Amino acid sequence: MNFEDRLKPVADEVDATIELYFDKDPDTLEDAMRYAVLGGKKLRAFLVVESCALHGVPYKEALKAAAAIECIHAYSLVHDDLPCMDDDDVRRGKPTVHRAWDEATAVLAGDALQSLAFVILGGLDLPSDRVLSAVIGLATDAGKDGMVLGQARDIAAESANDPLSLDAITALQAQKTGALIKWAATAGPSLAGDDIGPLEAYAGALGLAFQIADDILDEIGDEAKTGKRLHKDADAGKATFVSHFGLKGAQAKARSLVAQANDALCVYGAQADGLRAAANFVISREH
Amino acid sequence: MNFEDRLKPVADEVDATIELYFDKDPDTLEDAMRYAVLGGKKLRAFLVVESCALHGVPYKEALKAAAAIECIHAYSLVHDDLPCMDDDDVRRGKPTVHRAWDEATAVLAGDALQSLAFVILGGLDLPSDRVLSAVIGLATDAGKDGMVLGQARDIAAESANDPLSLDAITALQAQKTGALIKWAATAGPSLAGDDIGPLEAYAGALGLAFQIADDILDEIGDEAKTGKRLHKDADAGKATFVSHFGLKGAQAKARSLVAQANDALCVYGAQADGLRAAANFVISREH
Repeated sequence: MNFEDRLKPVADEVDATIELYFDKDPDTLEDAMRYAVLGGKKLRAFLVVESCALHGVPYKEALKAAAAIECIHAYSLVHDDLPCMDDDDVRRGKPTVHRAWDEATAVLAGDALQSLAFVILGGLDLPSDRVLSAVIGLATDAGKDGMVLGQARDIAAESANDPLSLDAITALQAQKTGALIKWAATAGPSLAGDDIGPLEAYAGALGLAFQIADDILDEIGDEAKTGKRLHKDADAGKATFVSHFGLKGAQAKARSLVAQANDALCVYGAQADGLRAAANFVISREH
Repeated sequence: MNFEDRLKPVADEVDATIELYFDKDPDTLEDAMRYAVLGGKKLRAFLVVESCALHGVPYKEALKAAAAIECIHAYSLVHDDLPCMDDDDVRRGKPTVHRAWDEATAVLAGDALQSLAFVILGGLDLPSDRVLSAVIGLATDAGKDGMVLGQARDIAAESANDPLSLDAITALQAQKTGALIKWAATAGPSLAGDDIGPLEAYAGALGLAFQIADDILDEIGDEAKTGKRLHKDADAGKATFVSHFGLKGAQAKARSLVAQANDALCVYGAQADGLRAAANFVISREH
């Protein structure tokens, strides 16, 4: 089965879960939030659902945890697209939120999506202490020591005189993209009170492979397929994994990281085939 | 004792609590966050601390809950001040975050302050189920059904053809300002597992009085004392409590609401004098 055919039903169920938190008669704010969060690949949601299945977390609760991280991811995209940040007009093949509405609505919809993530995650019907750990973990990984820090450093890099070193890019990406991927992939053992070690190792390699693949897509991707503006980094003269390793070197590095990610799953045997497929997808995707 | 002399030590201890979550060697993002959240009256923090004292919540935990709501309040001010929102240059007598740094830093600092609120609140050393309820409550009151909704409606009102009715303004303010004030004033009984009824009634009246007082300040306040731009509503031709009630009528309404708020505290006797002083302060403050 094509991996995207595997993502689709999970994405649909996560969207249906998110819809439950909206009014039947939504206003502009809720319209903009739904526009931003519904649809999309929902790769992070898939990681949550697979990780939860490996550790016996009930599917319904897994869907809520998946919905929560997708709210965080969606809010970060809405804010990243703002004119004062990446200034993008297109996302997932549609006008960005500030283009479809206006900047104020985009700021507020992003803000409210972040809040909604914690409403949804806080409501998991699992032991309170584990849910609380998941809340603290998500807030930490999303905030000033994780995703937002990575984003701030990424923006700072654009106006810096010297291109970032490979170590600096790796650290930045571990924050910007890696932190949420780690939270998603380790959600199952975290919520079950099990050892997160193997999935943490998987997520570390996967997160880096994901970002290298993003840099490759930015270089050689097709805007019609990605549904977003490309060649931004090269145009901005920014250091990326591709500028450091070269295109072929970056591709080889991404393949090696995926092999490493999949090796980390050996303790799970064939049960982790979904996560293996996700890792393979990350470096072969065209969007 | 002057009420502001009573706020100061609480504000200082809340600031010290927040500082614990920052690195000793902060970067630009953390500098901007600290600039936004430290200082200020910290009235919401005072409500949390007093409410917790009434219900036996340990002071150290009360300070953390107070720190959390001040992070939410500070993030909302940073985003509200953005050019695409209220476009303000001055806040608490200092340049706003996007003036002191830039818009991208203001968006990100606000985003990370919201995350930090949930890191801090999630870490309360109290029974997990109660902490989790507090997290869900704060996320709900801050988000699309509370503060952010009120803000979105407030912005929509500025470009509407017809001024808002009194009922619409009252509902909007219950979301924009009232929701967080209610969370703050009921934090004690919520975290202790006690009845929130009396403090919820206090907070409902106080929140409305607070907003009427804000409208009065916007009309007759002194910018040197408030440390922010005034007369914005009148300049924008916006409906306010003052435009509906007239200045004297608004002042009388605010006084009557404060009396109502204080009546709701009768079950606590003299122990609630701090909250009574807070209510009296709200309608007599000059900033």
